[in-house]
Amino acid sequence: MANRTMNFYAGPAALPLAALERAQRELTDFQGTGMSIMEHSHRGPAYEAVHQEAIALLRELVGIGDEFHVLLLQGGARQQFAMIPMNLLRAGRSADYVVTGNWAKQALSEAKLVGQARAAADTEADGTFVRVPAQGELELDPDAAYVHITSNNTLYGTQWHRYPDTGDVPLIADMTSDLLSRPIDASRFGAFYAGAQKNVGPAGVTVVVVRKDLVDGAREDIPAVFRWASHAEKDSLWNTPPTFPIYMMRNTLAVLKEWGGAAGLAERNQRKADLVYGTVDSLSDFYRCPVEEGSRSIMNAVFRLPSEALEKRFVAEATEAGMLGVKGHRKVGGIRISMYNAVEQAWIERLVDFMRAFAKNHG
Amino acid sequence: MANRTMNFYAGPAALPLAALERAQRELTDFQGTGMSIMEHSHRGPAYEAVHQEAIALLRELVGIGDEFHVLLLQGGARQQFAMIPMNLLRAGRSADYVVTGNWAKQALSEAKLVGQARAAADTEADGTFVRVPAQGELELDPDAAYVHITSNNTLYGTQWHRYPDTGDVPLIADMTSDLLSRPIDASRFGAFYAGAQKNVGPAGVTVVVVRKDLVDGAREDIPAVFRWASHAEKDSLWNTPPTFPIYMMRNTLAVLKEWGGAAGLAERNQRKADLVYGTVDSLSDFYRCPVEEGSRSIMNAVFRLPSEALEKRFVAEATEAGMLGVKGHRKVGGIRISMYNAVEQAWIERLVDFMRAFAKNHG
Repeated sequence: MANRTMNFYAGPAALPLAALERAQRELTDFQGTGMSIMEHSHRGPAYEAVHQEAIALLRELVGIGDEFHVLLLQGGARQQFAMIPMNLLRAGRSADYVVTGNWAKQALSEAKLVGQARAAADTEADGTFVRVPAQGELELDPDAAYVHITSNNTLYGTQWHRYPDTGDVPLIADMTSDLLSRPIDASRFGAFYAGAQKNVGPAGVTVVVVRKDLVDGAREDIPAVFRWASHAEKDSLWNTPPTFPIYMMRNTLAVLKEWGGAAGLAERNQRKADLVYGTVDSLSDFYRCPVEEGSRSIMNAVFRLPSEALEKRFVAEATEAGMLGVKGHRKVGGIRISMYNAVEQAWIERLVDFMRAFAKNHG
Repeated sequence: MANRTMNFYAGPAALPLAALERAQRELTDFQGTGMSIMEHSHRGPAYEAVHQEAIALLRELVGIGDEFHVLLLQGGARQQFAMIPMNLLRAGRSADYVVTGNWAKQALSEAKLVGQARAAADTEADGTFVRVPAQGELELDPDAAYVHITSNNTLYGTQWHRYPDTGDVPLIADMTSDLLSRPIDASRFGAFYAGAQKNVGPAGVTVVVVRKDLVDGAREDIPAVFRWASHAEKDSLWNTPPTFPIYMMRNTLAVLKEWGGAAGLAERNQRKADLVYGTVDSLSDFYRCPVEEGSRSIMNAVFRLPSEALEKRFVAEATEAGMLGVKGHRKVGGIRISMYNAVEQAWIERLVDFMRAFAKNHG
């Protein structure tokens, strides 16, 4: 058993050890084929079975119905920021973006290079993205091609706990930092997507779930490689897929299924988040979470200390104690604890012990 | 030592066993960090060192000067088919494509969706792509934004052995199936690119080498994720890179360096190709290579047997004997032997023994 580092990176992030050990065992010889899974053709039966199993596990664990395609693509959420308007935003139409953080902003900025897009709400003005907006704050265009949200805002530590009602306008969510961290009602969405590298696998594969009618109605005058339809028609084997990242996602999903799927993961993740936020709130003379309580993320807890000097010391001492990735994003400062699916509760317990001792020593 | 299958797949393809074994040893604990390389942040020192080493090895082994950026992107050659015209083809300009096979055709087709592009030559008409054109056959537009070629045509088994002279017009080459299989004079090119999965690594990472002045002059009105400049400015860490595929490419390049780099690989690859073509030519009553001699690829040897029934039997018996991936592409038929960098000479020796025996038994 490896001596595991406590990994609180914002992503790429921790993976289940069992998923890594499985990969290690069969790395040079996949299931007695005398070849690594990386050496198999994407057109051969060995890889194809892995590919289809990854898609089937996503369908099962996330709860994705037959009305959706499940695509395994490349380029991360960033590429979907462009591909969504390229596929869905025809001339004369406009799209609504709910701006709740850095990635939501980037998504809107890319859309504006493709077509007409506007902010239907923006929570930056009233305190640097410390909450997601309430339904009543959304100025939704009833004729919009779609409404785009970021379900969890990694930098600012906020998360939608109740998705907005967009009526007949398709709701599209960037779920890069919370896909499969809790149950969702997929049928509420026109599309959702995620880079795998936070909750469901390694970097290099992007999950795109999109309603079949939206793919059927999508633009055909864009390069074929950017058309969702190209990939949908060939089960994401239209071009060479990132075979090893998909294989590792399969390994990861198989472990997440053993851990109870979306419901089991939500319980585990809530327990971890409660420990961190509970510690912050119980030591409110020393720690302070800027995020409004109803918008707190169970994936990324962001908090401040009494001074930047103390924050710097906190990061140094945590790193020394074997806890990596606790420094907040440079746009936000302070501390950020990312606690995705594969972050172990034992690490969080060690972390909050450390937080208590640190507050006592420096408070 | 694993019992290795003889892997003649067209890609994803064989990788050096030493590169796989290195990955296996450190899969759960990268250099004593207590984390897999897949779990490291792309902003952390452990991954960044791997990333920079991969780029440095490409520069050293391919011979890429300071006038070029070396980008590590996603989406394969297919995505570059779109990104090249998106970056370089402004309104009022046209691009030249030399059509020598399926992938060259696809590249032209994508370019036409982005801007104005034309075929400067097409070797399909005179016998289904059995050769690359001579310099005199190219109808080059002196005002073209660039000239695009496919340096090796995987399906048809042809390869450019002397690159065309395009004067002041930048020459751009899709080198997906022969990058680092032989020395090239990089300074002849405006850009060249390759999906890694044939000669330099696993699927999921795309190498794009592009002259800095072309990046500086590229279009800025396209989505940021598709601008080469976004990635060039941040050393391909603008967004989350496919960290494990890049790590495996690093492992592969380190082995290819031990094997003598481009010059050493060219010798090895030529020896393998000579064995296959020599066997085909010496048994010309039975085997027939449709490709003109001056255009024969050292990467993919394509040949026919006296009947389709015999070809089917050849594939079945080869597979039975542990030789995978010998079936020709469905557009071409017959047999195709892909013999990229990591295909071992011993496998080729076994293959030509099999070819001789098969011809004797069925000739």
